Amino acid sequence: MKLNELKVLVDVAAGRKAAELVIKNVKVVDVFSGGLIDGDIAIVNGMIAGVGSYSGEKEIDGEGMYASPGLIDSHIHIESSYLTPEEFGRIALPHGTTTVIADPHEIVNVCGLEGLRYMQRAADKTAMDIRFAVPSCVPATPFEHAGATVGADDMAEPLKEENIASLGEFMNFVGVINNDEECLRKIIAAKNAGKVIDGHSPNLEGKELNAYSAVGIQDDHECSTIKEMEDRIARGMYVIVRQGSACHDLDTLVAGVTPANERRVLLCSDDRQAETLFTHGHMEEHLRKCVRSGLSAVSAIRMASLNASECFRMYDRGAIAPGRRADIVIFKDLKDFEVDKVFAQGVLAAEKGRYLLPFERADFSSVTGSFHVKDFSADRLKLKLASDRVNTIGIIPGGVLTAKKVMDVRLADDGDFRFDTDIDVVKAAVIERHHETGNVGIGLLSGYGMKSGAIAVSISHDSHNIIVAGVNNDEMAAAVKELIRQGGGMVLVKDGEVLDRIPMPVGGIMCDRSGEWVAEHLRKFHETSWKELGISRDVEPVMTLTFMALPVIPELKLTDMGLFDVMAFKFIDVEA
Amino acid sequence: MKLNELKVLVDVAAGRKAAELVIKNVKVVDVFSGGLIDGDIAIVNGMIAGVGSYSGEKEIDGEGMYASPGLIDSHIHIESSYLTPEEFGRIALPHGTTTVIADPHEIVNVCGLEGLRYMQRAADKTAMDIRFAVPSCVPATPFEHAGATVGADDMAEPLKEENIASLGEFMNFVGVINNDEECLRKIIAAKNAGKVIDGHSPNLEGKELNAYSAVGIQDDHECSTIKEMEDRIARGMYVIVRQGSACHDLDTLVAGVTPANERRVLLCSDDRQAETLFTHGHMEEHLRKCVRSGLSAVSAIRMASLNASECFRMYDRGAIAPGRRADIVIFKDLKDFEVDKVFAQGVLAAEKGRYLLPFERADFSSVTGSFHVKDFSADRLKLKLASDRVNTIGIIPGGVLTAKKVMDVRLADDGDFRFDTDIDVVKAAVIERHHETGNVGIGLLSGYGMKSGAIAVSISHDSHNIIVAGVNNDEMAAAVKELIRQGGGMVLVKDGEVLDRIPMPVGGIMCDRSGEWVAEHLRKFHETSWKELGISRDVEPVMTLTFMALPVIPELKLTDMGLFDVMAFKFIDVEA
Repeated sequence: MKLNELKVLVDVAAGRKAAELVIKNVKVVDVFSGGLIDGDIAIVNGMIAGVGSYSGEKEIDGEGMYASPGLIDSHIHIESSYLTPEEFGRIALPHGTTTVIADPHEIVNVCGLEGLRYMQRAADKTAMDIRFAVPSCVPATPFEHAGATVGADDMAEPLKEENIASLGEFMNFVGVINNDEECLRKIIAAKNAGKVIDGHSPNLEGKELNAYSAVGIQDDHECSTIKEMEDRIARGMYVIVRQGSACHDLDTLVAGVTPANERRVLLCSDDRQAETLFTHGHMEEHLRKCVRSGLSAVSAIRMASLNASECFRMYDRGAIAPGRRADIVIFKDLKDFEVDKVFAQGVLAAEKGRYLLPFERADFSSVTGSFHVKDFSADRLKLKLASDRVNTIGIIPGGVLTAKKVMDVRLADDGDFRFDTDIDVVKAAVIERHHETGNVGIGLLSGYGMKSGAIAVSISHDSHNIIVAGVNNDEMAAAVKELIRQGGGMVLVKDGEVLDRIPMPVGGIMCDRSGEWVAEHLRKFHETSWKELGISRDVEPVMTLTFMALPVIPELKLTDMGLFDVMAFKFIDVEA
Repeated sequence: MKLNELKVLVDVAAGRKAAELVIKNVKVVDVFSGGLIDGDIAIVNGMIAGVGSYSGEKEIDGEGMYASPGLIDSHIHIESSYLTPEEFGRIALPHGTTTVIADPHEIVNVCGLEGLRYMQRAADKTAMDIRFAVPSCVPATPFEHAGATVGADDMAEPLKEENIASLGEFMNFVGVINNDEECLRKIIAAKNAGKVIDGHSPNLEGKELNAYSAVGIQDDHECSTIKEMEDRIARGMYVIVRQGSACHDLDTLVAGVTPANERRVLLCSDDRQAETLFTHGHMEEHLRKCVRSGLSAVSAIRMASLNASECFRMYDRGAIAPGRRADIVIFKDLKDFEVDKVFAQGVLAAEKGRYLLPFERADFSSVTGSFHVKDFSADRLKLKLASDRVNTIGIIPGGVLTAKKVMDVRLADDGDFRFDTDIDVVKAAVIERHHETGNVGIGLLSGYGMKSGAIAVSISHDSHNIIVAGVNNDEMAAAVKELIRQGGGMVLVKDGEVLDRIPMPVGGIMCDRSGEWVAEHLRKFHETSWKELGISRDVEPVMTLTFMALPVIPELKLTDMGLFDVMAFKFIDVEA
């Protein structure tokens, strides 16, 4: 900070100079003492000068409403919204969120660190402060080909940058607790840079959890039980309670929050679809749910402000106090948390649900065209099965787990799988699209309900290769080829015709469209999937496919390298 | 941290390798959840690998006692103990204190930044981790001559050092809130270095307190009322509750600790005499008092561990958890907090009150001999008073405040003050001793009770010039000359003879002796003062003099530049 800036701040705080802006007549939520302070908030140069009785060049009447620190989402993958950061910011900030900690491992898996740089440039265009982790696990596992590898050496310098929030969720907990050198070198790079290290350690406990946290991994958003929460808190890990579009742990975990431990609890989305932002909101929805579950409003607010600022060492925010960023949400009440106004660094950025500032989208040309597929054709989708008894990836509706389901299917004369409307199995394939390996991993999917056509998408956690499901090789190949021609996203084909599509030119995983457009078109794409292709209405047609290639989540998955048995930790044949 | 160290830590935490040391069978105080965990603590390379069921190359039976994180004193001036850091560590660590945040403004006022470097070298010799602030206010005020000036430019580089804890207590709050450029430049230097800034702002409130905290000053140990405490906590300042040898705020302030705000409350001594360490203890005494006042043991422990580690951004300690420093105290119980063992970085450093490690004292030659007095003689102590009605510095027993007390005294024919046994007034003088200015400030002291002789000391907050009180110029001069010859400390003279002395060769403000020696000799010096010189037994003979020259504490003080009226904020005549 410059001397003159500091002098002005002191002058305004001391009441000698008029503030730039004063939010008059609010009840300030004091996150330090837990109470409410009646007063005005004086703001200058994007910072809070003080709470008290102040006048300003500009004054906004707070009308006796509640002023809270801007809310902080402690862990999110913006790419999962299918929106670019500027658009995500435009949609989400009016819900009271002024800071998010975003782990860009999706785009970095596609484009390498240039993906991170693109996300940072895009984030600069919006008023929400989107801070990024350096992703720790790119690629996520050795059982797939991603678009890039980010090793300890690659991340050493980026980790030192002031704007980098952390080393991203360390999903490879097996590597950590077994002393994998590359894992430990990444961790040392983060420690040397003085950066927080995010965690991801579902089911780990006891000595293994000791080992995982001993290296300095200090937060975890993957808890689904109170015991997991307690285990982590006792070891000094912050627990980030997750309520996202896919995973809903908040109601369970809030019961584990106590006066003693609440300072170690944060809130996050992990992922937040555009539709969810419109129908449910963002971080203010978390507060609403917490309070309905019996937490006090202040406790809930702290979990999305002060606690997060402490965890991520962001000393300049997290409270309405002198010298901190003027990130402020005005709530009508502290029960329903209806957001009236949102200030970001002292600028009125949203009012009554509407983003007020000009929208500008960053150039994303450096992250387009990531489709480098070799040797693909319908023939590459052929199976040659020795048996009609096969391992299928059994869809379990409502989550990301699958079952290893053995079934009897029909075969063609050449041994390829042959779809039969009486047997709920279709073919699926993952086509490597980053480095022209020519890899095609083929498997069979049960419980999808699909009766005709094919769907191909290029969002496929975490390597984001192309994944396609369909009733025959021609339909599948048509969808894949159209997807490649389109530059990524989603394509739905029936009888050789494209019935629906969602172009996602940004890395093949994000749209360059508004949230409203994405929500509407995704709804329509789902409806077409159910109506035209017969996919079961119990099943989310797209999300099901996007998690099919995730080899860390049990039980059976498909990558560009083949069918992967997660429990046995190895590739297996389609034949059972 | 090196790769191999990390691997060993993981191996031990995971239970694959035996720990170096296991403290078996303890109840671990979990500062995160607030409960107790039964188990063993595995330690390797000075770090905690984990809590659980472990074996070690060496095992110590915790006998079911309580294991707490090592205690942290969040603000202390080690020099005020009259002991050098190594000796302070030896005496204090057995009381459970493993980290202190020390503000060395005393020695730096005498020797400049070389004083800080000496203190750091000395601190290296002891197991307690003594971390230093860069003092912010050297000299303390413009109304005295100290041994050095440390400006914003001088402190910029030292502030960046990893071992430096903070910018020290910013006593010049008047300068801060009035935009004094040098003050703000110091603050900017601390912010640029990412360092915490300690505060000192008694009586500040409202907008002035907003201004003071807006610059980033984030803790304050000077609260004496609950309102002051609440005001600061609401503004995001940590409140450091002080219980020292001079100031006792703990009992008052503990009543202001609530479940909501306790995370923002720390504990400190500010000063701790050797005698007090022996008779009362150190940080475990704070815990004892907190619990007697109704706080839970865990809340008290947190204030001296986790909270301090958060405030001072010492992420490697403050809890018994994987990956943190093995600074551990074993308490017999959590009511009387009798300390059984103290581990510092995994080494058993004290047991049952006794420091176990070898004692080594650092070379202090660079901070001796700071006596550069020009032109001093008995004649320099003469007053030429135009009136027998004078302003005296009125001693108020029990604290550091003085009154401006107008009295009638006897004068000699030449106008000098003449002591009269019926009038409780003696002469006092401050003799500048750093830079041969030749300055002698002369005043009159009432309420001391002195009837004969003189006492001269070279501890005199904050500039540590020589201060002498006596019944006539010859006695006073004799004491001063002996003090200079001695190289500093304390000298008591009666009828021209030295009756008692305490040499303090380290900067003239610390002894190079054991705490036991200092406590015993100080007791003896006090007794001699009372018995031989007739000083009132209500009055602490030495401490009274050491605070006589502190121009920031009301009401009337004496510096080398003369008699200072603190409320009027200017020098005044002795004549009333």
